Amino acid sequence: MTQPSDVEIAAATPMRPIEDVAERAGIPARALYKYGDHKAKVDVRHVAASQRRPGSKLVLVTATSPTPAGEGKTTTSVGLTDALNQLGENAIVCLREPSLGPVFGMKGGAAGGGYAQLNPMADINLHFTGDFAAIAAAHNLLAAMLDNHLHHGNELGIDQRRILLKRVLDVNDRALRDIVIGLGGVINGIPRESGFDIVVASEIMAIFCLATSLEDLRERIGRIVVARTRDNKPVTAADLKADGAMTALLKDALSPNLVQTLEGNPAFVHGGPFANIAHGCNSVMATNAGLAHADWVVTEAGFGADLGAEKFVDLKCRMTGLRPDVVVIVATIRSMKYHGGVATADLTTENLQALDDGLLNLYRHLENIQNVFGLPVVVGINRFPSDTDAEIDLLRKRMADRGVSVQLATHFADGGEGALDLARAVRLAVAESPSPDLQFTYGDEVSLEEKLHAVATRVYRAGSVDIPAAVRRQIAALEAEGYGDLPVCVAKTQMSFSTDPALRGAPTGHTLEVREVRLAAGAGFVVFVCGTIMTMPGLPKTPGAERISVDAEGQVTGLF
Amino acid sequence: MTQPSDVEIAAATPMRPIEDVAERAGIPARALYKYGDHKAKVDVRHVAASQRRPGSKLVLVTATSPTPAGEGKTTTSVGLTDALNQLGENAIVCLREPSLGPVFGMKGGAAGGGYAQLNPMADINLHFTGDFAAIAAAHNLLAAMLDNHLHHGNELGIDQRRILLKRVLDVNDRALRDIVIGLGGVINGIPRESGFDIVVASEIMAIFCLATSLEDLRERIGRIVVARTRDNKPVTAADLKADGAMTALLKDALSPNLVQTLEGNPAFVHGGPFANIAHGCNSVMATNAGLAHADWVVTEAGFGADLGAEKFVDLKCRMTGLRPDVVVIVATIRSMKYHGGVATADLTTENLQALDDGLLNLYRHLENIQNVFGLPVVVGINRFPSDTDAEIDLLRKRMADRGVSVQLATHFADGGEGALDLARAVRLAVAESPSPDLQFTYGDEVSLEEKLHAVATRVYRAGSVDIPAAVRRQIAALEAEGYGDLPVCVAKTQMSFSTDPALRGAPTGHTLEVREVRLAAGAGFVVFVCGTIMTMPGLPKTPGAERISVDAEGQVTGLF
Repeated sequence: MTQPSDVEIAAATPMRPIEDVAERAGIPARALYKYGDHKAKVDVRHVAASQRRPGSKLVLVTATSPTPAGEGKTTTSVGLTDALNQLGENAIVCLREPSLGPVFGMKGGAAGGGYAQLNPMADINLHFTGDFAAIAAAHNLLAAMLDNHLHHGNELGIDQRRILLKRVLDVNDRALRDIVIGLGGVINGIPRESGFDIVVASEIMAIFCLATSLEDLRERIGRIVVARTRDNKPVTAADLKADGAMTALLKDALSPNLVQTLEGNPAFVHGGPFANIAHGCNSVMATNAGLAHADWVVTEAGFGADLGAEKFVDLKCRMTGLRPDVVVIVATIRSMKYHGGVATADLTTENLQALDDGLLNLYRHLENIQNVFGLPVVVGINRFPSDTDAEIDLLRKRMADRGVSVQLATHFADGGEGALDLARAVRLAVAESPSPDLQFTYGDEVSLEEKLHAVATRVYRAGSVDIPAAVRRQIAALEAEGYGDLPVCVAKTQMSFSTDPALRGAPTGHTLEVREVRLAAGAGFVVFVCGTIMTMPGLPKTPGAERISVDAEGQVTGLF
Repeated sequence: MTQPSDVEIAAATPMRPIEDVAERAGIPARALYKYGDHKAKVDVRHVAASQRRPGSKLVLVTATSPTPAGEGKTTTSVGLTDALNQLGENAIVCLREPSLGPVFGMKGGAAGGGYAQLNPMADINLHFTGDFAAIAAAHNLLAAMLDNHLHHGNELGIDQRRILLKRVLDVNDRALRDIVIGLGGVINGIPRESGFDIVVASEIMAIFCLATSLEDLRERIGRIVVARTRDNKPVTAADLKADGAMTALLKDALSPNLVQTLEGNPAFVHGGPFANIAHGCNSVMATNAGLAHADWVVTEAGFGADLGAEKFVDLKCRMTGLRPDVVVIVATIRSMKYHGGVATADLTTENLQALDDGLLNLYRHLENIQNVFGLPVVVGINRFPSDTDAEIDLLRKRMADRGVSVQLATHFADGGEGALDLARAVRLAVAESPSPDLQFTYGDEVSLEEKLHAVATRVYRAGSVDIPAAVRRQIAALEAEGYGDLPVCVAKTQMSFSTDPALRGAPTGHTLEVREVRLAAGAGFVVFVCGTIMTMPGLPKTPGAERISVDAEGQVTGLF
């Protein structure tokens, strides 16, 4: 029997009133701003003033290097949270908000799946509470004020060849990647090259997810370097006097969104930066709100652990003092076989050798979590019907050999009940290592290049880092300007530890090729772009949008 | 003593819980979707299924030709509604939603002003309930699907030189008016000229404001002509299979927004199309919601009566069967002196001759309302401290000579109490003409050119209409394609009855110069563009955004 589609499961599951969800989490009614009966924002001032609940634990869910087969970090985060609650624990899940781009492109919804979903699923996948629209509005206001400044005489002396800020839209629109604006004569401003990114790639999205209050948000926004002058001095959003209005546009958005899992447990879903050019996890406001209102907070980091978990630790934890108490690495038998060299079409056929080979990818991520970051780890296997007993036995044996706890989970089909073993293992891991000593990959004080080198060699196991001379000069300039203390954010493919997406498994000795360096002064990091990073996706030949509609009852159809 | 600013007045006024506002209007709680405590949407299905309240009256508020001095239609609409409620009537005001463009540009807020405002003022002026973001998302999804179709082989045979659809953003950004997209090589699509309009100029905004249900919305969206083929056949949104997903994006937005006046009376604020290239008034859903839940509905039409009221009658009333029971023309002594030739700087000096000369503008609008549309009319004078007794006496005398009721109103300073005389005059006018015989400017059956000619000569009093040969051929083609039955929407300057904004007063014998014709097949009208119409504004040298901010309490500052 085939399981119903995600949207069908979600629509058929009764929801608790959101004020009940809030009340059980101890969120006061006065801090609740409802959007209908099943979504709410929790006032940013309440969150900023709240203390972390004593003894509360933070569980970071990450994964092996992603494959076309999919791993299931979001479903595992939701299933684990439901399972912890079934075990009598008090757990909240914190996740990123979906972007409209993938929803109408190929991937479908991004609020979990099967019986491990968030609800109201269609709302979360469409406009939700308007946060992404607010971020886009703030970003595009800044861009308009920048071009307006050029048009009205350019008092700040901006070099129009050195404009760094693009515009953003929450849609997959390849035709907007590379454009020329300001055409049509004097009244239309200054002609120049520009482009659009998708909203999740905006620096404002990254800032939004790191800010700890409205004041912090405004200060970070003010620091965004939008352009440089002819003598190469940075021009900021504060120089353009845009920071106040941008913060006004974001004032409601900064309050984290509360929804529920299919099992009625609280979920904060807030913010969603890329995990390549940004840090790839939900907002600090949401994580803090979770830790103030639960004993367990389960949160997800984007892409594989080399990108998402590394950035969670080296960026989010470094800036905030947060520390995961345990890390869950999500893997699948299918994806390990893929890393062992099996073609996508053959992943459902038993292949012990390929599984054994592909496990190298998992081992590498395990070593990083344990030895680089110093954190306890549990492996969660998202079980598929095609997984054979022999494959599972092999996996169990290999994990036992390494002393690593591995648990099968079937939350996609069974909800929280399918993740009870995983939840017990997570609880045990925390009990056994009650206060892990989190290590960063590098210290604040070393140079930008040394920081990059540390990530490349310690996490990616690259043999060398190749930095073009022009980029090296830019790095030196950034350090001269005082940005050398910032941590680094490496943007590379998520498909491999290397910059070559075709290099599966656990490559070593490869070269990390740096293409460019970008300053994210508001977010507070320096981005090294390695390989081709697409910050504005395109739609496939048959976009998902073609099958999406809404029936006469107002129910969205065709979303999976 | 100076009156506090709009934002100060609004913030200092206690609001009633929105469910109380709804309950007093007889809106069932099950139809209410709250956004916090003071904003709500009323479910589109409830509105679509509701009957008009027997005997309910529709009051259309319009104005003389706008001047830099401002007339005050929105404040009059709010003040009149509050005054009617003070008189014991049951009245609701229906208004357009503000666009972010003007908020951050020059004009400031657009939710009334002084003591005749809507609340929560800052929320309404910023994102409100996300309707404009939803409209932009639907529009830009359609545009992305169009360029994606070109990129993936162009099965529909679209002629890339004949693409009609642009993209939209809710920001004043002149640099996006005229752009080239799709640059950068094969993976970025097909290079072509394009541009962005502001959201209020989107045909989807016009559609949104004319749709009577989700089904009607989807059908209208499907009819949008986005491009033409090489043999000049229309290509629609339905051909691109975009209509379903676009409707899904708009499903919540179509439910009208309920807020309150400063005096706690209900206000529907929903949609906001331009009054030049579209019909310039709030959504039909909002008007219908008002008429189902009140005895009096006060609504506003954009710009002067030659644009807004004409389109209200010839487009909205024609398509829906709605009919104003009375029209209020808002005027000011200052603006009449401006039409009499006085410079902006001298408008506060008494000038009886200029007032007398400028009254020709008011007379012309009065004649149109009374003789072209056949509707009873009341003149409401938005009183300013600089108006002298002699000026007011002259105005009263002129109106008495014409048998027209004129009332002074001071709602800006005094709230509803300042508009009691106007409210009584409105009530009297309806009692005296209980069932006016609404006339359209032209019939459905005459040709597009004859329709245009009727508006030009009967409403604008042009001597002739100048249509270039190329436009004439396009008109013939539209009629051959079956669009000849549609009504026409003339886009011209709001500053004059003519297409020359400098021609004040009541010009006659001028030539209406048509520049282009555009099909709005989804909205259901044919647009004649006459003169320069700016569909993407620019920011001024010192944008309003520079002074807008938010304080630590989350209160927006600097919005007027």
